[in-house]
Amino acid sequence: MDIGRQIRIPTLVRIKRGALGRLGLYLRRTSCEISSQTGSGAGRGAGGGLGGQTGSRTSGGPVLVLTSPLPEPIAHKARSAISDAGVAIVDWIQIDNNEFEEAVRIFGHLPKKVGSIIGIGGGKALDTAKYVAFLAGKPYIAVPTSLSNDGFCSPQASLTFGGKRRSLPAVMPQGLVLDVGVCLAAPRSLWLSGVGDLVSKFTAVRDWKLAFHKTGEPVDDLAALLSDASVYQFLASPTFDEAGTALLGTALMLNGIAMEICGSSRPASGSEHLISHALDAFSRRPRLHGLQVGVASYIISRLQGKHTDAIAHLFHQTGFWEEVRKDPFSRAEWLEAVRMAPSVKEDFYTILSVRDRLPEIERMLDQDPLLRDCFTA
Amino acid sequence: MDIGRQIRIPTLVRIKRGALGRLGLYLRRTSCEISSQTGSGAGRGAGGGLGGQTGSRTSGGPVLVLTSPLPEPIAHKARSAISDAGVAIVDWIQIDNNEFEEAVRIFGHLPKKVGSIIGIGGGKALDTAKYVAFLAGKPYIAVPTSLSNDGFCSPQASLTFGGKRRSLPAVMPQGLVLDVGVCLAAPRSLWLSGVGDLVSKFTAVRDWKLAFHKTGEPVDDLAALLSDASVYQFLASPTFDEAGTALLGTALMLNGIAMEICGSSRPASGSEHLISHALDAFSRRPRLHGLQVGVASYIISRLQGKHTDAIAHLFHQTGFWEEVRKDPFSRAEWLEAVRMAPSVKEDFYTILSVRDRLPEIERMLDQDPLLRDCFTA
Amino acid sequence: MDIGRQIRIPTLVRIKRGALGRLGLYLRRTSCEISSQTGSGAGRGAGGGLGGQTGSRTSGGPVLVLTSPLPEPIAHKARSAISDAGVAIVDWIQIDNNEFEEAVRIFGHLPKKVGSIIGIGGGKALDTAKYVAFLAGKPYIAVPTSLSNDGFCSPQASLTFGGKRRSLPAVMPQGLVLDVGVCLAAPRSLWLSGVGDLVSKFTAVRDWKLAFHKTGEPVDDLAALLSDASVYQFLASPTFDEAGTALLGTALMLNGIAMEICGSSRPASGSEHLISHALDAFSRRPRLHGLQVGVASYIISRLQGKHTDAIAHLFHQTGFWEEVRKDPFSRAEWLEAVRMAPSVKEDFYTILSVRDRLPEIERMLDQDPLLRDCFTA
Amino acid sequence: MDIGRQIRIPTLVRIKRGALGRLGLYLRRTSCEISSQTGSGAGRGAGGGLGGQTGSRTSGGPVLVLTSPLPEPIAHKARSAISDAGVAIVDWIQIDNNEFEEAVRIFGHLPKKVGSIIGIGGGKALDTAKYVAFLAGKPYIAVPTSLSNDGFCSPQASLTFGGKRRSLPAVMPQGLVLDVGVCLAAPRSLWLSGVGDLVSKFTAVRDWKLAFHKTGEPVDDLAALLSDASVYQFLASPTFDEAGTALLGTALMLNGIAMEICGSSRPASGSEHLISHALDAFSRRPRLHGLQVGVASYIISRLQGKHTDAIAHLFHQTGFWEEVRKDPFSRAEWLEAVRMAPSVKEDFYTILSVRDRLPEIERMLDQDPLLRDCFTA
Repeated sequence: MDIGRQIRIPTLVRIKRGALGRLGLYLRRTSCEISSQTGSGAGRGAGGGLGGQTGSRTSGGPVLVLTSPLPEPIAHKARSAISDAGVAIVDWIQIDNNEFEEAVRIFGHLPKKVGSIIGIGGGKALDTAKYVAFLAGKPYIAVPTSLSNDGFCSPQASLTFGGKRRSLPAVMPQGLVLDVGVCLAAPRSLWLSGVGDLVSKFTAVRDWKLAFHKTGEPVDDLAALLSDASVYQFLASPTFDEAGTALLGTALMLNGIAMEICGSSRPASGSEHLISHALDAFSRRPRLHGLQVGVASYIISRLQGKHTDAIAHLFHQTGFWEEVRKDPFSRAEWLEAVRMAPSVKEDFYTILSVRDRLPEIERMLDQDPLLRDCFTA
Repeated sequence: MDIGRQIRIPTLVRIKRGALGRLGLYLRRTSCEISSQTGSGAGRGAGGGLGGQTGSRTSGGPVLVLTSPLPEPIAHKARSAISDAGVAIVDWIQIDNNEFEEAVRIFGHLPKKVGSIIGIGGGKALDTAKYVAFLAGKPYIAVPTSLSNDGFCSPQASLTFGGKRRSLPAVMPQGLVLDVGVCLAAPRSLWLSGVGDLVSKFTAVRDWKLAFHKTGEPVDDLAALLSDASVYQFLASPTFDEAGTALLGTALMLNGIAMEICGSSRPASGSEHLISHALDAFSRRPRLHGLQVGVASYIISRLQGKHTDAIAHLFHQTGFWEEVRKDPFSRAEWLEAVRMAPSVKEDFYTILSVRDRLPEIERMLDQDPLLRDCFTA
Repeated sequence: MDIGRQIRIPTLVRIKRGALGRLGLYLRRTSCEISSQTGSGAGRGAGGGLGGQTGSRTSGGPVLVLTSPLPEPIAHKARSAISDAGVAIVDWIQIDNNEFEEAVRIFGHLPKKVGSIIGIGGGKALDTAKYVAFLAGKPYIAVPTSLSNDGFCSPQASLTFGGKRRSLPAVMPQGLVLDVGVCLAAPRSLWLSGVGDLVSKFTAVRDWKLAFHKTGEPVDDLAALLSDASVYQFLASPTFDEAGTALLGTALMLNGIAMEICGSSRPASGSEHLISHALDAFSRRPRLHGLQVGVASYIISRLQGKHTDAIAHLFHQTGFWEEVRKDPFSRAEWLEAVRMAPSVKEDFYTILSVRDRLPEIERMLDQDPLLRDCFTA
Repeated sequence: MDIGRQIRIPTLVRIKRGALGRLGLYLRRTSCEISSQTGSGAGRGAGGGLGGQTGSRTSGGPVLVLTSPLPEPIAHKARSAISDAGVAIVDWIQIDNNEFEEAVRIFGHLPKKVGSIIGIGGGKALDTAKYVAFLAGKPYIAVPTSLSNDGFCSPQASLTFGGKRRSLPAVMPQGLVLDVGVCLAAPRSLWLSGVGDLVSKFTAVRDWKLAFHKTGEPVDDLAALLSDASVYQFLASPTFDEAGTALLGTALMLNGIAMEICGSSRPASGSEHLISHALDAFSRRPRLHGLQVGVASYIISRLQGKHTDAIAHLFHQTGFWEEVRKDPFSRAEWLEAVRMAPSVKEDFYTILSVRDRLPEIERMLDQDPLLRDCFTA
């Protein structure tokens, strides 16, 4: 019989202080809920979970894929949290890129008895780990150590393929362990980058609705509403402390689920991301994803005529503006990026598709007092 | 292969002004996505959807289950929206209760060629319609005409069984069509009841976490976080207008999804609901569910030491306090309800289970200036 | 992201000698795989499985629903197998009918802490147990003690509703424990009834294809092919011994899965079932479902011009003909049943819908040497 | 709420004569049931199916991946069947290997607007196409033109990775279109290879059960029973004609579903496959997979003491023995393969793991009259 519309969600979610130190415990507890997806002789009935219980021939312990370099205290805590819980780590791989080719290489050399893949660190390591898990058909656990973007709980992996950034289909994590203390201890610029990526949901959803009106591209209302809700939750208490970090982490996670709901990045990425992608492609010195995206969202929100005040206020409260002004963007590069943006993605209608927005944006950069110091002459 | 953890979500979601007038259109558009779940000769391949296309022997049109009395303009608009889209209504049933026995009776008399069940109106009609759809294995579309509680998009149905209120397992709606204009035109007290039900998520989640610490009952973090997020989204803009009503509707919907995620009502219902259920059981004149629950949430939040200010402020902004004060509750009945609350539900640990809270609450009713006029002597 | 087409299948399947004596063991082993579907405070994370582990507040033991009377040795073995494994039986209910109203009554009185429903015995108890589990949102384990029909592993429950037999949407069992020794020890007539029900898949699938050609009702090829496969598997070795009984049990189980695949009873039930249903409705003394259906299948196969020899040969090998001839059917009643059959089910095209088949069948009863002694004058 | 155990099955299944000529028709008909799994801007709501309807911006037509060389009449029929139905073919790729690296290359160059991947031809093209679809998150339709093995409907892809054959996690096809006429017109040796691969299910399942007894590796009874059933269905009528070919295709398809059920290749591959894999690795001239596997199954069945007669008889009926004897295997190579077999797969217990079986097999090759002419001295 028909089961209706279904989406995948993580089985294990922990967003709290001290979560990293309990990683092994979580793995053991959920070992009967999360089971290996495939592999010869590793059927579901095997009870082969994350824990790699002694005595079970068919289960296996986790392979860790970590950001390189990961601060030693974090690496050490992760390792001992797992070992102390009696879970044997099968392998330990450090990663300093997010290349498809590297993910394939790791996949090709995975030991036979892997029970799960755990990604620990920043976006690149997590996207690589997620993709390795996808290729291997193993459960994937995300352990982000900073909140710089919303990719840690989405069903896509952002990797370079032949040197070009692409968003590849992958799988939702089966687990998310987000240690609020660890993320708060990461450089504040990463936290602010997460804030910038979060507000882009406002402009992304507007672009999506615009696309529906202009091209008939369907909007998934549930995904759009959840995406919006995720921003509002954070707006209520956007403080750089544990509570605010937990909210930011939750908001970015819900965003990933919104992408899972509709099967595309539409609820999370619109014209503001096109500008950022363009910058990444040619800027002499690309900045943090979320810083680029955040400023671009502010700009786009003005074109869209909505959410500008909320974004401006949030950026003020959090210190986002200051962070950007410390190291302003290149005005010339941004104007070039705006020019390129509409052609970055095929068949992707946004407010930049309506007509040439360059003159308006040029005026904005000159006249908007909030933007002025964000750009060099 | 293992598919990971999955949840059911509605295929069709529309939360906007004028949605009721497009009901037929939505049914037609989604007829290829929502298909009948069962029934002899009505396989999925039948393309038998909501639309009841001519020529298909196996599909069927919708049966409407409506609140009695439903304001004639709404009933008329629903009917003509469906008919004008060329969808033949199979039957049209009016309901003024939410009795299990009545749902069974309707189920027993469903015509053979029903393609779906559409519930239109308030909570009782919607819960009945949802349960009929569950029994019949047919897709269910919820069309709430007010926002008085969070049951319209949950996988349970609140029905009386042998005269006793029970929360029965049912199915998630496959569609939610929420006309913001219609809900805004409903009595404001219903809207405020929805607000009261919404804030109870704060106290419910706290009770859940308390239960985990005291009894080991596991908390589903994802459900808890989504439940919290749903409240915050509304807090950001709790206005009695279209925008605020859309936010309230979205928040209540996300709450239903939180219940689907964890398979229980824990993220939506804690000790504040126990008090309300107790009142329903013996009060001479029970009030709107959400009004009771809202005031109880405020009280419980004080015991829990969290969210009190946010709730108080929201009640102030929305006029919730005024609504309650217009027709104050009976102090004696509430104290009796607090006394009964811990025994309303078996094996359900809340802050009321810790120790006798009656003296504290008695003092609160006497001394808290916000509560004082909410109760008669 | 879209997950593709999915069907539910049992998590636990055991078809072997001695399975009943290991029932408790199976329940314990699979307790981490099968979890309660719903209920306040009984989330999936609860680990609340079949086993009802000590210390878990939210899980619960099984309620047993048994055929009345069930031979005491079987009842005793089931009970002690469960208890010996340390699983506490919550309740123990005996059933001698398959009334919807009775299932509702049992559901209404289920203790709060039920973890699962186990049906043990014949078709009526199993269908009742399955429906109770459906209403309660609990996992259901089927433990058939005979193989008289293919309902034990299907997603429907055959119950009377207001005194009329109906096939109601329910759920697939999450477990099937079929003790080959127990089923072999049941009266041989029950085993033969299962054989009769099995061959009806041949004629049911033909009727389905006919319906497609005449009315466009879609055929689910996968369901139809699996249905056919299930018969062939048994034809290969249709012996009244353990091996043959295991094959028969497997075949009937695969049939249930075929129904799950297409969401209807089409692959399992065609015009031969219409004749049997008609007989059930008015015959002075209806016989075993599968005996009626088997003979009707043979008759229909002759009208369809296919599978007649295979059926005849199987009936010869297994002693099916002899069983029927021991207590022949009433010729008059059968002719009346053939007359009524086309109107038993609305919108259900079969070979009996093409034209009046009565004269042909009358001739068949007179002239076919295999049928002759199956009917009284 | 928990949904129970679920498996993925194809939405579209057609096993019949003339199916290839209706390929476009099938694609159009099922376009509303099979939707793209992912991709920017290509949500499920897009109605973006296989058909690539005009006017829908987000859907896309199919990319065809074909065996090179594919007989021109078949290629032509496929192409025109699709085009004549108004479905625009996006790309057309010919493949003469099954290299992981090649699948990645194709994936990397897929046009943006691909709606689905269709594999047409033999095992290599089909496995490549399946893997490309997996990487791209697109629906995959299998159109086998011969029945040489059971991989066309399984959730794994057999590819070489760095030159070494591996079975990689992939996805179940969402469609299977098997033209019985086309498969019957393929060289008979391919058909016989399919027969050889089919009977290996008998020995694979025995090895699985043996592994359970010796190592505790769990057996998924449902998968094992379905695997067995698939063989029996064919045994009932193993004729080299349309009926027999349809049965063989169905049996091999059900085998793929058995693998999906348990998430491993255990129900389809045991020690007989180890021998064949060893041969593939070093034989000077490896033969068709199924010819090797079939003979190995016969040998293993003798060690296992079960199914030998059934296999021998089937090989006799179908002409399998003759086919092998036309071009006998190398006795020396086979003995070497038997020696290597236990070490081909880590942690994979089979009858060859119990003790050294070489002497027994050597004797068998010398003395078994059926085997004698199958090997050169």
